[in-house]
Amino acid sequence: MNSFAVGVDLGGTNMRIAAVERGGTQLATLQAATDLKRGRDLILAELCSGVRDLVQRFAPDRQLIGIGVGVPGIIDLETGTVHSAANLPGWSDYPVRQELQKRLQVPVVLENDANCAAMGEQWLGAGQGVDDLCMITLGTGVGGGFVVRGRPWHGLMGMAGELGHMTVVPDGTPCGCGSRGCLEQYASATAIKRMALEAVAGNQAPGLAKAVAENPGFDARAVFDCYRQGDPAARAIFESVGSALGIAMANLVNALNLPLHVIGGGVAKAWEAFSPALFRELTRRSVVFRAGEFRKVRHKATMVVPTDLHGSAGVLGAARLALLLEQPSTWRSAAV
Amino acid sequence: MNSFAVGVDLGGTNMRIAAVERGGTQLATLQAATDLKRGRDLILAELCSGVRDLVQRFAPDRQLIGIGVGVPGIIDLETGTVHSAANLPGWSDYPVRQELQKRLQVPVVLENDANCAAMGEQWLGAGQGVDDLCMITLGTGVGGGFVVRGRPWHGLMGMAGELGHMTVVPDGTPCGCGSRGCLEQYASATAIKRMALEAVAGNQAPGLAKAVAENPGFDARAVFDCYRQGDPAARAIFESVGSALGIAMANLVNALNLPLHVIGGGVAKAWEAFSPALFRELTRRSVVFRAGEFRKVRHKATMVVPTDLHGSAGVLGAARLALLLEQPSTWRSAAV
Repeated sequence: MNSFAVGVDLGGTNMRIAAVERGGTQLATLQAATDLKRGRDLILAELCSGVRDLVQRFAPDRQLIGIGVGVPGIIDLETGTVHSAANLPGWSDYPVRQELQKRLQVPVVLENDANCAAMGEQWLGAGQGVDDLCMITLGTGVGGGFVVRGRPWHGLMGMAGELGHMTVVPDGTPCGCGSRGCLEQYASATAIKRMALEAVAGNQAPGLAKAVAENPGFDARAVFDCYRQGDPAARAIFESVGSALGIAMANLVNALNLPLHVIGGGVAKAWEAFSPALFRELTRRSVVFRAGEFRKVRHKATMVVPTDLHGSAGVLGAARLALLLEQPSTWRSAAV
Repeated sequence: MNSFAVGVDLGGTNMRIAAVERGGTQLATLQAATDLKRGRDLILAELCSGVRDLVQRFAPDRQLIGIGVGVPGIIDLETGTVHSAANLPGWSDYPVRQELQKRLQVPVVLENDANCAAMGEQWLGAGQGVDDLCMITLGTGVGGGFVVRGRPWHGLMGMAGELGHMTVVPDGTPCGCGSRGCLEQYASATAIKRMALEAVAGNQAPGLAKAVAENPGFDARAVFDCYRQGDPAARAIFESVGSALGIAMANLVNALNLPLHVIGGGVAKAWEAFSPALFRELTRRSVVFRAGEFRKVRHKATMVVPTDLHGSAGVLGAARLALLLEQPSTWRSAAV
């Protein structure tokens, strides 16, 4: 009998729920708006109802292994609580895992959303075939996650992957975290919009000024549209995005020499706009990256690629983590 | 019967050889100058002679597990060759492991020297009790190594740990690696001397100028002596060292949230001079570090500490790697 799991990607804006077979076949996906104003308990009830729906549809012919839930916050893995989740008010210190297990009567894995996305890419996306990868997500903020030997890397306090707060310009733009020149200030959707508005305010960007005047919802996507129309100020902004990413990636590649780095999040759609500057900076700054490119180890070069799975990386990774419950450690299972 | 291994730390200047019991007891240590002019074959002969000396002394009452050899270069772990070793001319692509095994008739482990130092600290030094740590060595250059789950982290091409080439000042001092503003340009012994000579050339440092004039062997150690005598220019130099280290450490802590970072190498002796600036910068730039310091996870804070083992970290780590031959994987042995 085939086995399956249900993955949940609980974002501050949307919730996705998917039933996925062990082999990676996606049986069905549900999607709903996460209406934060309705409060934690209603959101949890909706989540459970979606999960039950999928379980009832697919459990008769398959064995349900468990539920994986990705949450945008710092997870206490031992207790299954959410330590702090800026985008999910009311969830801090709530025993999410215990509550879901009680309601659903199946094993639940709770995980940080960026780690889920990293696991999803490693399982079914850009990272198929590698055991170790770094995922960096460029959205409203910049986040990240590592997969090490096929498992999420949590770090001591579950806080690994704060890649948005790597310093790329020591005296650069102040960041909400208290530092200056964090990657997030140059490579997030928020930063792209800010840099565009700064260029407009400085009277340096007539094309962007026109777009701002015409579009009340002007955002990073609109800056990318201007780039596609050949606007030089938009081009300069994506150069900054790529340079900042290149510095951060060079630091990671020099430190860890991972085989793969996957860039996801909404901004990844502008890959063509920022990746040339990214690779220019990365090549210049990383002796390890160059070694992979130019020397005898060419067949084992460190790669930087855009996401394969886009918005579904997280929900697939969450399902993957639940499926791994069957197999607590690859090493242990190898020895058995 | 107790078991033991012999560790070798083959530096460009000195060679250390130590016999170490499984429990960590150091039975004996030999030290000799590495006279590079005499060529690879004579150095290897000397190495083997030192190893045989210790084996003959201690093998009768103990079981010899193997030999661990730390080398300053990039190791091809599969073939046991040294890919490139700037400080050991003539060693590139030489089958060191195979040759040593043939001559000594015992299993040999070949490892990068910084990884050996990291393993030594984890075993008997500042890292006792943690499974994961980052070691950063401040010497002529800046190097590094990671221990992940009790083993060296090699990365895809064995090139992990190039921490000296993390960017700390994007438009800073040019580096031999082709980049600018690498950590090595601010935190190595070479950089400390360079910054002192720059300050003297700029007529900004009468105390250092006097030291340069009086001391033909003026070096980083002499700058530290000036610091201890209260010289303000020397103080400013160690502030730069600490700030640069703080930026690099903040990036590592934010990315990986490891429990421990150990700072070794000769410059670590100036810990009192650079560590205040290091912690100031690290606290300001790392939300993850602050979380460990100030929040409920205090008992699990990320730590940055100076080396416990100084020059013997490498040779002890090399012996440790040989002892681990008995125990190929902690996971496998746990499952057996």
